[in-house]
Amino acid sequence: MPTLYHHPMSSASRFIRLVLGEYGFEYDLVEEQPWEGRREFLALNPAGTLPVFLDDSMRSLCGAVVISEYLDETHGALKRDRRLLAENSFQRAEIRRLVEWFLVKMEQDVTRHLARERVFKLQMPTAQGGGAPDSKLMRAARGNIRQHMKYLTWLAGSRPWLAGDRLSYGDLAAAASISVLDYLGEIDWSEFPQSKDWYQRIKSRPSFRPLLGDRIRGVTPASHYADLDF
Amino acid sequence: MPTLYHHPMSSASRFIRLVLGEYGFEYDLVEEQPWEGRREFLALNPAGTLPVFLDDSMRSLCGAVVISEYLDETHGALKRDRRLLAENSFQRAEIRRLVEWFLVKMEQDVTRHLARERVFKLQMPTAQGGGAPDSKLMRAARGNIRQHMKYLTWLAGSRPWLAGDRLSYGDLAAAASISVLDYLGEIDWSEFPQSKDWYQRIKSRPSFRPLLGDRIRGVTPASHYADLDF
Repeated sequence: MPTLYHHPMSSASRFIRLVLGEYGFEYDLVEEQPWEGRREFLALNPAGTLPVFLDDSMRSLCGAVVISEYLDETHGALKRDRRLLAENSFQRAEIRRLVEWFLVKMEQDVTRHLARERVFKLQMPTAQGGGAPDSKLMRAARGNIRQHMKYLTWLAGSRPWLAGDRLSYGDLAAAASISVLDYLGEIDWSEFPQSKDWYQRIKSRPSFRPLLGDRIRGVTPASHYADLDF
Repeated sequence: MPTLYHHPMSSASRFIRLVLGEYGFEYDLVEEQPWEGRREFLALNPAGTLPVFLDDSMRSLCGAVVISEYLDETHGALKRDRRLLAENSFQRAEIRRLVEWFLVKMEQDVTRHLARERVFKLQMPTAQGGGAPDSKLMRAARGNIRQHMKYLTWLAGSRPWLAGDRLSYGDLAAAASISVLDYLGEIDWSEFPQSKDWYQRIKSRPSFRPLLGDRIRGVTPASHYADLDF
């Protein structure tokens, strides 16, 4: 059975869990603390980043983009109207643009700072960067949430799904990142009804259920985190 | 004719220029200062990042990964043994892993800091972040060069090209990032003969010639920058 090395507060890991869920994969989930720099983990991915997917032949695939492209080529292409990347190259480009928006840009502007300051630093030993959260960094990250929510709302309001007519990697990447922030209670849904409607649809999918069951030691989720009707 | 919006000190832009050069594209090159946040540029790419490729139908493709995947699907796939992505999915994953290594990891650890502190800050108005370079940031970035050069040397020493038997996106992404640092004289080649041999092979390709002609106002390149025999 394949294995996914992940962390519950890593957006990129959540994205791949959603993809694997949508495609009905059976796999083992192993939680990794990437800041530990475990030798066995670095042998799988010298970059030391999450997620890492170990296939049935024990070959490792490193990083969300690499894994999602591989899964599309080896599984998605056979799924017809359940494929999470489009057939048309220009539509594929639009989906990939959104994946990059949510897993790279929003990650750098917002998500990774809040995940790090509010979660990872609690789990890290001081020598590896643990300690009290940096409130200046958190304030800057929070200040960027609105811009991303506005963009999400524009996308959700102008198309049935974020990249077009069909559920795609774009929706799953966005939902992955948003769900980390929602766990931490950082999203004010009342301001963004169209985004809320979109998130409600995603959240109700069976592929999302395992994410709603995630619990982080020492960090209680927002009270509405697992509610389908929030 | 298509247009590429780029900056000469952006690794991701250089990567796409190399890909377009290898595939023999004719295109217009437009220099963009992304920190200016020009409205017309943001209309092409709301993320405000480089590179952006505008195709013959004036449709924009945003970011190096999106552009390179699109070029592979629409052109590379027809190039047989000159294709810059492999046919086999697992080899494609390895090439993509290296692209991510050099354009994301090495970028975050090293290249973007040195490009920003030594080049962009000279071009930026103070209000947009310009000013004197931050020597602490530069020292940290320089401290990370060795680790990346060692990894490059290991790849160059164990395979004919970085990702395997054929020139690939992996080589072009690595060369793009290295060439920015080499312009700035940040690479000590004497320590890494196998990387030097690989870089010499890439540097001699016709696709590389335009990059060797780049000159930045106020920043003279290292004396060996444009030498094929350095």
